[in-house]
Amino acid sequence: MPDISKRSASRRKGRSRGQKRVSTIARAPYIKRKIATFDILNEEGLCLIEENADKILRDIGMEFHNDPEILEYFRDAGADIEGERVRFEPGMCRQIIQASAPRQYTQHARNPENNVEIGGDNTVLSPVYGPPFVHDIDNGRRYATLEDFSNLNRIHQMLPQLHHCGGIVCEPVDLPVNKRHLDMMLSHITYGDRALFGALIGSERAEDSVAMVKILFGDEFVDQNTVLYGVSNTNAPLVMDDAMSGSLKVYARNNQAVACTPWMITGAMSPCTEAGTLAQLLAEALATCALTQLIRPGTPCLMGSFATAMSMQSGAPTFGMPEAAKTVLAAGQLARRLGVPFHTVGSLTSSKVPDSQAQQEGTMSLIMAVLAGANFINHATGWLEGGLCTGFEKTIIDADLCGKLIEFCKGIDLSANAQAMDAIAEVGPGSHFLASAHTLSNFESAYYNSTSGDANSFEQWQSEGSQGTAQRANKIWKGLLDEYQQPAIDAARLEALQEYVERRKAEMPDQSY
Amino acid sequence: MPDISKRSASRRKGRSRGQKRVSTIARAPYIKRKIATFDILNEEGLCLIEENADKILRDIGMEFHNDPEILEYFRDAGADIEGERVRFEPGMCRQIIQASAPRQYTQHARNPENNVEIGGDNTVLSPVYGPPFVHDIDNGRRYATLEDFSNLNRIHQMLPQLHHCGGIVCEPVDLPVNKRHLDMMLSHITYGDRALFGALIGSERAEDSVAMVKILFGDEFVDQNTVLYGVSNTNAPLVMDDAMSGSLKVYARNNQAVACTPWMITGAMSPCTEAGTLAQLLAEALATCALTQLIRPGTPCLMGSFATAMSMQSGAPTFGMPEAAKTVLAAGQLARRLGVPFHTVGSLTSSKVPDSQAQQEGTMSLIMAVLAGANFINHATGWLEGGLCTGFEKTIIDADLCGKLIEFCKGIDLSANAQAMDAIAEVGPGSHFLASAHTLSNFESAYYNSTSGDANSFEQWQSEGSQGTAQRANKIWKGLLDEYQQPAIDAARLEALQEYVERRKAEMPDQSY
Repeated sequence: MPDISKRSASRRKGRSRGQKRVSTIARAPYIKRKIATFDILNEEGLCLIEENADKILRDIGMEFHNDPEILEYFRDAGADIEGERVRFEPGMCRQIIQASAPRQYTQHARNPENNVEIGGDNTVLSPVYGPPFVHDIDNGRRYATLEDFSNLNRIHQMLPQLHHCGGIVCEPVDLPVNKRHLDMMLSHITYGDRALFGALIGSERAEDSVAMVKILFGDEFVDQNTVLYGVSNTNAPLVMDDAMSGSLKVYARNNQAVACTPWMITGAMSPCTEAGTLAQLLAEALATCALTQLIRPGTPCLMGSFATAMSMQSGAPTFGMPEAAKTVLAAGQLARRLGVPFHTVGSLTSSKVPDSQAQQEGTMSLIMAVLAGANFINHATGWLEGGLCTGFEKTIIDADLCGKLIEFCKGIDLSANAQAMDAIAEVGPGSHFLASAHTLSNFESAYYNSTSGDANSFEQWQSEGSQGTAQRANKIWKGLLDEYQQPAIDAARLEALQEYVERRKAEMPDQSY
Repeated sequence: MPDISKRSASRRKGRSRGQKRVSTIARAPYIKRKIATFDILNEEGLCLIEENADKILRDIGMEFHNDPEILEYFRDAGADIEGERVRFEPGMCRQIIQASAPRQYTQHARNPENNVEIGGDNTVLSPVYGPPFVHDIDNGRRYATLEDFSNLNRIHQMLPQLHHCGGIVCEPVDLPVNKRHLDMMLSHITYGDRALFGALIGSERAEDSVAMVKILFGDEFVDQNTVLYGVSNTNAPLVMDDAMSGSLKVYARNNQAVACTPWMITGAMSPCTEAGTLAQLLAEALATCALTQLIRPGTPCLMGSFATAMSMQSGAPTFGMPEAAKTVLAAGQLARRLGVPFHTVGSLTSSKVPDSQAQQEGTMSLIMAVLAGANFINHATGWLEGGLCTGFEKTIIDADLCGKLIEFCKGIDLSANAQAMDAIAEVGPGSHFLASAHTLSNFESAYYNSTSGDANSFEQWQSEGSQGTAQRANKIWKGLLDEYQQPAIDAARLEALQEYVERRKAEMPDQSY
């Protein structure tokens, strides 16, 4: 692989300034968790869910719509095919997955310092995915554009709390629907140097994603290494359509990762109980993860979980609720027993603005994803309005929470220095530790330094304009854009990518679907 | 015990309307946790902290200022006394505590339906304690008055998510400092019928608390049962002064509970590392819990933990930070090993207003207290500005989080109904669960229904005035005050209490300290 991310001295300097502004946390390419997971189900409960998932796959099965090729893969593997319905003997999918799916893999970034390890005790935080709107407190909510998209990419690149470029950080609705994926990928590669998402919907766009990373990394490198992260959602209950199986096939054939993620507004798309939802979720994840291994044994796949409750009063989806928390914790346990990395979702909320509701729901949701031992957390920052809107201030406020959780995941240091027995003896009763040798030698790294919070006195806060969190966050993201410097990239490769995008766009008429 | 809380039919009706408005959660007197605790330290780590605490108590010891009687208790028990310094042989405090302190006890409320079980797998949520200011979005921040105090008591009584009256829900600074405790206790007894706090500071005020509950419950009942919850803070590092030991002695002698709670702004009052803080915290808790048992073996005591980091940049205390989260989880483990209930703190924040920061910090803080297995969570609602201010809207927003965590603590139902296998078979692939028999028979109780959040569409939210969470919460607390009905109380006892308060106030000149 060529050196496509050589850094100039000036860029290093610029980045370092930006990081200081954002957080005192040291940038690490991903989280290495030193804390346990939170296990909400015991062995008996887990076995029950697994048995129920097996019964669902045997007695009901799953449907794969408009994709006869998929049915052939399953037929060849010994599944029972009836029309588009596929049924599996108990244990069959698990066996297929465990025979070849990696427990952990590396996703390469164009800057090798940003390669991420996905699986094991590692967690990767990725920004919001999918919203057609953006929100900031200056302009309110509006349709997103490519300019917003690229600005979000610049901001994300400057945030040390994020580990991944993300995908559709907002949907640039100023571009034709059938061509956006090309501009989005080019924007990601141009403005960031972290690991990339592949396009979500349909084989053609997935092929474009693969073609572009081949230009960036080289054909052979891509065949032998994982450089794209794809998500494949089921249409719960128990269906996958060809838009999703189409991209899944492309990524699996090319050795690129697929997060097989049942997407469930529970009560509508799954039962309104956690145990029922979990069995269905596991059944869908088993069948689709198995599919990736039938297509190319050994290609990385993740078990995903996105289950959130529908309001039984209004029919609206809700986020950050206790039922979703319980479900994600159990899903993480099920993924670890299956032996594949676990993908889930982060700071979700129904709130339209970056206010109390947004942080109460988002904080609960992201903490639970971390405690569930998630290996990849999508939507870790920026999500508003049930995923319809990316918030600029919300991104900054959520990144602050990400920083707190990065520190939390380090666990408790039990070194002699951390035990501080000499300090306690030195200070003794009734004094203070401010001037102790221990404090003086540890204070710089002692504590997480909140970026968006204000711990000052009321009087000082008032004298500084009585600003709320969103106002402070507004200043921060603007500062990041000011300080942003584009990461270095091989000029010839960038030109080749631009040419590819132009050529592909010229080949297609504009379409709005 | 006489029936001092007979309910009238009209009151029941009124209460039921209030609850419906606040939440769909069923009112329960306390949380019975069906989930595990989150253990952040392993056996080795826990033993290390315990050994270090023992070393601190042996080599450094703890000081008890201006209270020779305390020193006599310790001397009689075999501790080494040097001036006001008390040193303990390793294991001595633990042995004293484990010989007599109850692992669980009942705190009686004047309405027996509101009795709380403290210890074991139970969690009691109590409102904010101590702020001299109040805040609402109509009037901003201002000094608190007795009217605010009583209004907060009315609101708390209407919130099914709270289990306890709390104590100084705000500090009524319009009253003389030396008499406030009398008016506060009378307000609590008048406007609520849940379990009570005793006054915090000094033996005289603690004696007043005991005298008043004796009027309420009867002398013998109070001697044989616990009806007051007292907190006794150390002045970390390793000091307890007579204001705290004074009230501790009164409560312990009267069989009333004391939460022995080292209060630490870490980095100033303890080392700036979690392991150092935990050893000091455990040492202070061991010495003060042991003291309660030396005074009256078998009187309830709790191990408390209130450790939060000081900003190394500004010197301000911070809240909801990762270091506090790690510390509370480990402290919970240490308390369970000691075998006494665990007391800690809830929804803390430095924010001056009920905004994003308030909920990011508060949510992290309260979730960690719950995962730490806390048996009593003080400041579960309402805390703003580092504890200097009680927020009316913050109270409502935090109570919503309490409701979510109450649901979360129920764990995952694995009954046949919850497994929903018939529903999954009935619906099958590609349909939906909205009209399934399972959904129809479960939808009313299926999900937590957020009180302060808005899950509606952007358009509907906009048409309703684009309100933020705080604006919705403002309506809710005003509605609760409108719907509030005073719980029934025996008129003769209330009159006797009023007489006691008047008499005691007449006996003392007003003082501002």
